[in-house]
Amino acid sequence: MPQPRDRATRRADALTRLSEPAVDVWVSTASPAGTPYLVPLSLAWVTERAVIAVDESSPTATNLASTGRARLGVGPTRDVVVIDAVVERTVGVDEDETLGRAYAGQADWDPRGLAGYQFVVLRPDRIQAWRESNELGGRLLMRDGRWLA
Amino acid sequence: MPQPRDRATRRADALTRLSEPAVDVWVSTASPAGTPYLVPLSLAWVTERAVIAVDESSPTATNLASTGRARLGVGPTRDVVVIDAVVERTVGVDEDETLGRAYAGQADWDPRGLAGYQFVVLRPDRIQAWRESNELGGRLLMRDGRWLA
Repeated sequence: MPQPRDRATRRADALTRLSEPAVDVWVSTASPAGTPYLVPLSLAWVTERAVIAVDESSPTATNLASTGRARLGVGPTRDVVVIDAVVERTVGVDEDETLGRAYAGQADWDPRGLAGYQFVVLRPDRIQAWRESNELGGRLLMRDGRWLA
Repeated sequence: MPQPRDRATRRADALTRLSEPAVDVWVSTASPAGTPYLVPLSLAWVTERAVIAVDESSPTATNLASTGRARLGVGPTRDVVVIDAVVERTVGVDEDETLGRAYAGQADWDPRGLAGYQFVVLRPDRIQAWRESNELGGRLLMRDGRWLA
């Protein structure tokens, strides 16, 4: 097992991962009654926000509209970035040109023009990153929306 | 993009994936109030049940005790098996020798002997498998606990 990374390295690695082209994210949400939902989606990382595109009738969209919270998992299971996030705003895919261009520029598909699709802009509240068990200590990188020094 | 697999192939591929040594799974659960939780854990697949080992004080354990439901994601995001499951039983890691041996035989760690750890045996209710967008059709492999013919 390699030596555990320090916090600055983990933060840099996490930001690199989140900014890569065609990065996917496991998006977990829940219904107000506590039924979990989980689906892999394409991610864009735009000005420190996680942006996903969803059909407004999908469980992810309806859960986010109800509860306002998601937890995201990025990366293979032994090199993860985990983000707790809150819904900052939801906008139709053709209603914000800057956002649409940023999303389509990073993701490997383009939802613009698709009826019923929306971008959900998720504001990270807490970010953790770890590889193996020896990195569980020191995994917290952001708390209450602020990067730890 | 390769041709979409038929159902029998997807089922065989899914069972192979679930039975591999050291396979990890993204486990999503939710609090009764609808706060999502997501964490990667080692999986064992024992007589058509998904078995995880968790600290009884972890959010995953307390969510499962409250709501009885999980949704599991296995595999890279473009070759996934997604399982909706219900808690069948929870047992201390040293209380079921057969289960403990099966878990330790597949996972690459052994929780037996760890105070406060428990196995949660999850019964699949619904299983889906897909790779890329051309496999979204036909992704349902199990419904109401029964494999589709």
